[in-house]
Amino acid sequence: MATLFSRIAAGEIPSYKVAEDDNFFAFLDISPLAPGHTLVIPKKEVDYIFDMEGELYKDFWHFAMKIARAMKLSIPCLKVGIAVIGLEVPHAHIHLVPMNSLDDINFSKPKLQLPADEMASIAGEISRHIK
Amino acid sequence: MATLFSRIAAGEIPSYKVAEDDNFFAFLDISPLAPGHTLVIPKKEVDYIFDMEGELYKDFWHFAMKIARAMKLSIPCLKVGIAVIGLEVPHAHIHLVPMNSLDDINFSKPKLQLPADEMASIAGEISRHIK
Repeated sequence: MATLFSRIAAGEIPSYKVAEDDNFFAFLDISPLAPGHTLVIPKKEVDYIFDMEGELYKDFWHFAMKIARAMKLSIPCLKVGIAVIGLEVPHAHIHLVPMNSLDDINFSKPKLQLPADEMASIAGEISRHIK
Repeated sequence: MATLFSRIAAGEIPSYKVAEDDNFFAFLDISPLAPGHTLVIPKKEVDYIFDMEGELYKDFWHFAMKIARAMKLSIPCLKVGIAVIGLEVPHAHIHLVPMNSLDDINFSKPKLQLPADEMASIAGEISRHIK
């Protein structure tokens, strides 16, 4: 059975899409740690990021870099932080989180819920800044 | 002035070294979140990971993959997690953390202090498993 993330990448489950190419898909985390918190996934299902084939893995990080640079241009933050944890959904995913303090990337704190129009606006802003 | 991490990579400050090549250096975090918590750095100083030149950035992640795979072989854990935060030392670094639960990669919790012989033993074990 397809993972939740494969169904999102296929458009079967709606998401606030930020970008995609042949191999990867980026969308806003529906329960963000900070506004603009984005998830980046490979379209090909793999649970553990370090089980990815070497070239695809490097391209995955390069795709994430493009998204992170666009996030930095569109969301006020000191840096965009990175986390890969993967103890829940069995489909490798990179968290990109706009940070102004360490607490912005603390996965133990309560998540935000933002209005749909704000989520759509953020996704659009990031998308427009991708080079 | 050289960053703390540049001085570690140059051997001016001692560390529990895990691996190095021409461009990158890996060593145990002296205040680990979990036993085996490793830091991976580029030898060339850069503050923000997404300011790295594209090829060096991809090679950096590939080097981190080799370390993470060795960690998984030498330390009992479900997965090796990844974090890049960078609000303290102004020298890009990837945290690789052996995880058995989400709490193992919670940077807000108190850090561990392990005896020197245990740190040396862990560094040696990871190093021996690098392919």
